Amino acid sequence: MTPRTGLAVPAAAPPRVLVRGRERVEPALRAAVGSLHPWPRRMASFALGWCDADGTPAAGGGKGVRQALAVLGGEAVGAPEEAIVAGAVAVELVHTFSLVHDDVMDGDERRRHRESAWKAFGTGPAVLMGDALFALAVETLAGAEGGHTGAAVRHLSGVLRDLLHGQADDLLFESRPWAGPEAVRVAEYEAMVAGKTGSLLACALALGPVLAGASPRRVDALTEAGRHLGAAFQAVDDVLGVWGDPEVTGKPVHGDLRRGKKTLPVLAALAAPTPAARSLQALLGPGVPLDAGTARRAAGLVEEAGGRDAAEAAARRHAAAARRCLADGPFAPEAVHELVALSEFLLERRL
Amino acid sequence: MTPRTGLAVPAAAPPRVLVRGRERVEPALRAAVGSLHPWPRRMASFALGWCDADGTPAAGGGKGVRQALAVLGGEAVGAPEEAIVAGAVAVELVHTFSLVHDDVMDGDERRRHRESAWKAFGTGPAVLMGDALFALAVETLAGAEGGHTGAAVRHLSGVLRDLLHGQADDLLFESRPWAGPEAVRVAEYEAMVAGKTGSLLACALALGPVLAGASPRRVDALTEAGRHLGAAFQAVDDVLGVWGDPEVTGKPVHGDLRRGKKTLPVLAALAAPTPAARSLQALLGPGVPLDAGTARRAAGLVEEAGGRDAAEAAARRHAAAARRCLADGPFAPEAVHELVALSEFLLERRL
Repeated sequence: MTPRTGLAVPAAAPPRVLVRGRERVEPALRAAVGSLHPWPRRMASFALGWCDADGTPAAGGGKGVRQALAVLGGEAVGAPEEAIVAGAVAVELVHTFSLVHDDVMDGDERRRHRESAWKAFGTGPAVLMGDALFALAVETLAGAEGGHTGAAVRHLSGVLRDLLHGQADDLLFESRPWAGPEAVRVAEYEAMVAGKTGSLLACALALGPVLAGASPRRVDALTEAGRHLGAAFQAVDDVLGVWGDPEVTGKPVHGDLRRGKKTLPVLAALAAPTPAARSLQALLGPGVPLDAGTARRAAGLVEEAGGRDAAEAAARRHAAAARRCLADGPFAPEAVHELVALSEFLLERRL
Repeated sequence: MTPRTGLAVPAAAPPRVLVRGRERVEPALRAAVGSLHPWPRRMASFALGWCDADGTPAAGGGKGVRQALAVLGGEAVGAPEEAIVAGAVAVELVHTFSLVHDDVMDGDERRRHRESAWKAFGTGPAVLMGDALFALAVETLAGAEGGHTGAAVRHLSGVLRDLLHGQADDLLFESRPWAGPEAVRVAEYEAMVAGKTGSLLACALALGPVLAGASPRRVDALTEAGRHLGAAFQAVDDVLGVWGDPEVTGKPVHGDLRRGKKTLPVLAALAAPTPAARSLQALLGPGVPLDAGTARRAAGLVEEAGGRDAAEAAARRHAAAARRCLADGPFAPEAVHELVALSEFLLERRL
């Protein structure tokens, strides 16, 4: 797919903070997961990409985005290493818990080019493993050193509330119609994304600083920056879900459209007062799943009605808002510089 | 079923602390649940027995055992009302979370004479609701007043670790054989019960006191007492699962035996060096489900091999150990008196 966002030109290589973040966080993450009961421990190692379903070590694992954000958020306020690492470990555990349970709720059989955890181990065991990761996140944070663990656990509680609120809305959106008074509005969708995606990236940036006792002003600025980054990434993921290259995304062409998933480009297109929007509404009306030809026509109409432009504009707008939050600080300039470079790299790479 | 434990004669009426506990805790519990997203809120109200699946208010709800234990544990150390209530609310939320997710993991379709939550709402929504209750428990505790919230969250984290460890073992026991080197041993079963059942009753007694800053000695004594009560209740429940009156338990006659569930009377019977134990082993060998006649013969053999006596002796032993822990205190005598009366009432009522 063609880059169209007008964001900065991507760097030739991934920012080194992606490697640095993993190097600093992964030992503590492995130690925490290693303390679990052997069975959920093995399932969690699979979910984290460290091994195959049968326990064979694997070279996988995520890109390390949240670890990198945690390291940079911590460096931005001069947090001590232990606070950065404890915060990053807690965020990674909550993130993995939420993916594992989300896949159960959505019935998704694939995750990161492999089987999802419930598909590999069964629904009950996957639920148990997610619960164990959730509990481990709380335990990691509550057991962290320093005098701000209470504030950090309260912060994480608020994040979990937002995350689960967003997940509840996302599940409810599935059964709502594309048109009429019950249709999902763009503003509702954006609120759902702020909860489901934004809260966790905000937590990645801000949790270490909370644990280190950073000022509310700096914590709030990092939180806002993280929410905007989450909204920007989600808008780009939504574009990829319709027009992304299946080779890269690992998902079928027009996959989100065929499943009838409510995403920003489609909702924005439907909200436009254009003939293309009305044709799109008629096309989506009969319900899911769409056949390949209908999905292709729908994708064309979404683009014609301005849905793709709207989503890409939203990504640019949120990325700029994140930069403004980071300029507000005061933060260590080098960390802010790396954060901006990282977010631009990630957005360009996705587009 | 005939009372056979030799515990104290049951009171004519339930101890008044069961009502007192609910009266003091339920308003805060309802306020906490009322703060959830409307969808998980409605599902949680069903799981707590406050409404039917369609939202119609119901007069149900649990017996209030954990609330009563929390009130008495708090009174035993002179904890302030806010600490008692916050601890009790957190325990009740964690308990409900664990029941809801357990029913998903075990595939149990009935709970308290009604459909289980996943049966009523679907697996995904039930998982979501459980997650929301779990997060709410942490939030309740982390947001409680006083200077001991960090210690209280750490305490709850340890409880969750034990609870999920026990649940993992319980699930794994299902696929292990009745005999041979892979058979579940009585000691393993007792360790599983200490985690899955004991940890939560221990938490009910001790969490409010931790939140109120009670001394480690008193917290440890309450924790031990709670673990023993949990083991005693579970031993009696195990007896009821084989010989209980279906009218009272709401479960089919010989239900646990027919499903091949590993429980104390059966494991203790199989461990006995008697002909009845060997006949029982042969009967259980072919696997589940057992037909009605086989289950009746198996129940007879469990009794003949001493399994029922062993479970009832374990219940008496653990109840006595709980009383000794409470005598160790120092605790407010009236609270200890009520705790002993409550536990005897509950054990006799079950037997």
